[in-house]
Parts: sequence; C-alpha cells; structure tokens
Amino acid sequence: MKTIDLMHGAGGAIFAELLGKTLTAYTHNNAGGIGLEALDDGAVIPINGSNIVLTTDSHVVRPLFFPGGDIGRIAVCGTANDLAMMGAKPIALTCAMIIEEGFEIPQLERIVKSMDEALGECGASIVTGDTKVLERGALDGIAINTAGIGITEKPVRDCGLKPGDVIISSGTLGDHGLAILTAREGFDLGEQIHSDVAPVWNIVENAMAAGDVHAMKDPTRGGFSNAINEMAEKSGVQVRIREEDLPVRRSVASASELLGINPLDVANEGKVIMGVAANDAEEILAAIRRSKYGQDAAIIGYVVEGSSVIMETSIGGERFIEPPIGDPVPRVC
Amino acid sequence: MKTIDLMHGAGGAIFAELLGKTLTAYTHNNAGGIGLEALDDGAVIPINGSNIVLTTDSHVVRPLFFPGGDIGRIAVCGTANDLAMMGAKPIALTCAMIIEEGFEIPQLERIVKSMDEALGECGASIVTGDTKVLERGALDGIAINTAGIGITEKPVRDCGLKPGDVIISSGTLGDHGLAILTAREGFDLGEQIHSDVAPVWNIVENAMAAGDVHAMKDPTRGGFSNAINEMAEKSGVQVRIREEDLPVRRSVASASELLGINPLDVANEGKVIMGVAANDAEEILAAIRRSKYGQDAAIIGYVVEGSSVIMETSIGGERFIEPPIGDPVPRVC
Repeated sequence: MKTIDLMHGAGGAIFAELLGKTLTAYTHNNAGGIGLEALDDGAVIPINGSNIVLTTDSHVVRPLFFPGGDIGRIAVCGTANDLAMMGAKPIALTCAMIIEEGFEIPQLERIVKSMDEALGECGASIVTGDTKVLERGALDGIAINTAGIGITEKPVRDCGLKPGDVIISSGTLGDHGLAILTAREGFDLGEQIHSDVAPVWNIVENAMAAGDVHAMKDPTRGGFSNAINEMAEKSGVQVRIREEDLPVRRSVASASELLGINPLDVANEGKVIMGVAANDAEEILAAIRRSKYGQDAAIIGYVVEGSSVIMETSIGGERFIEPPIGDPVPRVC
Repeated sequence: MKTIDLMHGAGGAIFAELLGKTLTAYTHNNAGGIGLEALDDGAVIPINGSNIVLTTDSHVVRPLFFPGGDIGRIAVCGTANDLAMMGAKPIALTCAMIIEEGFEIPQLERIVKSMDEALGECGASIVTGDTKVLERGALDGIAINTAGIGITEKPVRDCGLKPGDVIISSGTLGDHGLAILTAREGFDLGEQIHSDVAPVWNIVENAMAAGDVHAMKDPTRGGFSNAINEMAEKSGVQVRIREEDLPVRRSVASASELLGINPLDVANEGKVIMGVAANDAEEILAAIRRSKYGQDAAIIGYVVEGSSVIMETSIGGERFIEPPIGDPVPRVC
C-alpha cells in the first residue's frame, strides 16, 4: 500500500509527483481564469470585469513562537504574499483554526493579536472563520488555515520569464528556515537568526509601479532553489545566477555550513524572486529598496534561452542549482 | 491556566463565548461589506460593484467514510452551502489538506474523487490548494480545509427574520448527526441511517426565484436548535415551531430516542432553514420541493414579535427550544 511520507509535504520533487498524480485529479479545476492546472501561487477568477485572486495555505510551523515571528504572523503573511505574487493587493482573509483540547487560551490570544498586527501591515482584514476542536492526542496543538482574496488589474505569473530578463531577489535568502531550525534545536550560534516573515505587497506594489515585472514567486518551502527552478521550467528558459551577488546573511551562511544545509534550499517567508525587463531593472531595484522589507534587494542573475538553472560560481565555475528533493527543515510554515 | 476543551468546538453556547472573547478580537475584521463582526455563514466584500461572498470551513469528521458520504463530500458541500446561505452561487473553492505521515494514498484518491463529484453537483471548481504533511502521531489521519467564493446580487442574512414570516425547513432534520453517531458506534438499528450531505444551492436558487427569502441558515453544528435560535436572536424576533410539522425520519427519531439525543440538536449537512414572506411561502415551498434535495421540505413555523424560540408541542403545550450547550456528537463535520 502506498502511503504518504514526510517528503510528500516538503515542497520538493517528491511532493510534485504526488501533486501531479493525486492532488490535482479534479475535472472541475478552473473557474474561467487561472486555475489549479497552473499550480501558481494562487488562482485568478474573472468576475464582472475584475480579476479576483484566490489562494490558501495551512500553517503547522513548530515552534509556534520563534525569533522574528510566530504561527499567527506566518498564517497572515503566507496567504497575503501568495496574493501579492499574482500581482494582487490582499483584501480579505479567512481564518480556520483546528485546536487540540487542552491548548492554552492565553497562547491563542497571543496568536490572534499577532495575526491582527500582520493584517494591519498588509492592509487586509480577516472577515470570516471557522474553529474545530479535536480531542487530546488527535493534533499536536494547533493548525491554522488562511485563505484570501485580492484584486489585480494584470495578473503576474510564475511562468512569465523571458530571455533577456533580469532576476531580482527582494532580500537575503534562507533566514526563515535557519531561524526555525536553530530555534528548534536550541543551537547557540552566537548571533540569533531571526525569521524574515513579513508581508511583501508593499515591495510588489512599488516594483510594479516602477517598471515591467514579468514573473514572480515567493521562495517558501523548498527555498530559492525550488522557486527559481519552477520559474525557469514553467517559462521554458534558462536562468543564470551569479553566486557572488546572492544576498545571504553571514549568520545564516555560518549556521548553514555548521548544519550542512544549503540556505538556498530552505524557506523564506518575506521575500520575492522577480524576473523583470532589463531596461527597467535598476528602477525596479531602487523601488524595492525603498520598500519596508526590501532594503537588501539585489540583482542576482539573468535569463537566457535554454533550460535549467545555472550557478555562475564565485571562482569562475558553473554548476546546476537543482530543486531540493524536499525542504530539509520539516514543519517550517 | 484557561485551556480549550471539546465543548469549545461544538458550535453551542460555550463555543460562542470563546468566539466572542478571543477568536474575533481582530481590529481588522471587515473589508467594506459584511465582516467577521456579523458572525454569519460568510462575509461579503463589495468589489467593483459585485458582491463577492467568502467563507471557510475545516473538516475533521470521523469516520472518514460513512453511510451517505465522506470527508471529501462534506468538505465541498460545507463551504458551498455556506456560500448559498448568503444567497451566493458557489464559483471557486480552495482545498488545503493536512495529512499524517502513513496515510494511504488510495484513500486520498478516493477522497479527491468524491470532492470532484460534489463539485460537479455544485457547479463550482477547486482552483487552488495547499498540502502539508505532519509526522506520525501529530494528527490522526487527515484534515481538509476548504474556502470558497461566490457571487450574489442581494446578500441574504441570518438576521433578516420579520414578524409575519413563515419558517421553512428544506427537508428532514438530524440525519447527518445520527448517521455519524450510529456508524461510529456500530449500532445496528435495523435501518441504516444515511447522512444528508449534499449541496443546497439548487434549493436556494429555486426558492429565491419563487419569492422573497428574508433569512437563511444551514443547521450544521448544534443542529436546528442552534440555527433557529441564532436566527431569532440576531433578528430580534420570536420564532414559533409546530412540533407536528417538523420533518424527522422515523429511523432518525427511533435512534435518537434509543441514544437519548435530540435530533434537533445534531448537525445536518444538506438542509436550509429559511424565513420567507408569508404571501410567498406556498410558492417557495413548491419551488424547494421541485429541487433535487428538497422533496421533504415543509413549513414548520412562523415569526412573531418578541424573543426566543417556542415549540408548540403535539399535545397542545409549549416549551422553549434552547440552543444546545454543545453538539452531542463530536467531530461531526
């Protein structure tokens, strides 16, 4: 009997197989715009001339509270950022909680407060919800699902890269995954690594106003390596990344080396990878750097004809950037 | 330390307290239309002249497969029906699954197939999703969240009852709760009780075309008793129900008596309670009876000035119908 294993949930290649065969086997999978078949960050439903974007994420991160954030902040930002990745301003979110009997109400209150603060940053509201309580032992604590709608004049896809485009990262990579891992394992690495969990709509809005954004994706589960490979494959292009231009914090690089983890393979929760028109790249970069969470933005590569993702290494070599088999950090979001 | 207990998830009075104090403590709770503060079946967000309805439900029913349905059918119908309760045609749904390591993939395939069939009946599509996998022991099997959007020209509320209105039930009451309970406990009651889980949009559409529907609610967790009390309280009216007109299957009544459960206190998953203009009541009733899942519809009561819900008993007496403290059947949806 084939069964689900942890790698099925890690956002990498094994998950993609399950997704392709089982979890997308709906014949009713599109409501007229961009549907499930696109496997983008969200769907687009045209309603009376408006492009409504719809997306969802369930959140099971552990620990519930970690340096730089908590499950509540991730629950709001995760969904708001998926809307932003489609070029949509987040408007309204749902919140459905599944809670284990015995969960402490003051913890719940702290989570709700954190969600409310994140909503304020996003400019969105939680407008409806649902709550289920499971008997002790049926769930380890709490799981939070959010879904959300946004609106966009022009949807942005993850498959829109064109040869000649420039690749921008809105900031440093690997922060969230390493923050979770070091917090969970109690490693003392000198400097505390903080999660980057934050809403990115402000970055996206500023970038789109400054020039032509062809493709976007947020590098969550599976990290940058997974996101950039999906973008390249879906767009039918080759992406070339310059290693020396990749923004990675020193503390994140050190912890990664110590733990034997590639910081490009772990989740970020407040970053955007964009492909933009080369002529607009400097203006878009400047616009991102003016945004609240975009100060460390960098141009990290470019798009050519071909396939796969190539790293141009600091010492003048080349190697593939492969999508990870799975995220090396389980329950990261 | 105050902690969550099972009654907090049962949709009754204890849950209402948690909901009022903790789970609705968002300052960002409305996106311009009907928001979280209304605690209705869904929210309404006006976008460029359209009324977009948004709703969500997480599904944790046990067993996963039961007479008359399964968790997949409930996951689609639960959300589609909440949209219908706001007067909205279901358009697009999300599907977010949390799955325990070791879950059998053929079971997952069976659930997806059931969801797809229910979507076909609803006329809606699953357009986007999310999947998380938890380590063995962190969840007992699977939890499925769906959220959905629909569109309505004129939202229908649960607070719109007016003195003089007639109360209609679209069919028999208590079927789902008793089906789950008897299936779970393995009771042999002679006749198998089947869940009523089904999409009700067709009922709602026909009813609204036939006359003036003032208020709707689907009697899920907490059953008819909870739904009708919420409608009466929010509308500021008294509802009077005639016991002899309440449609309850004989098998459901027998099982309820045997188990000491009130069939009006347990969940239905394919029913609507409506308050309609008295002049339109017969036409609306006929329209509901022409609908696929509305053959057993009945006029069951009426609305007067005052407060609370009164049962006019078969033997000529009167008693209150109280909202249950909690649903006597845990994990019913």
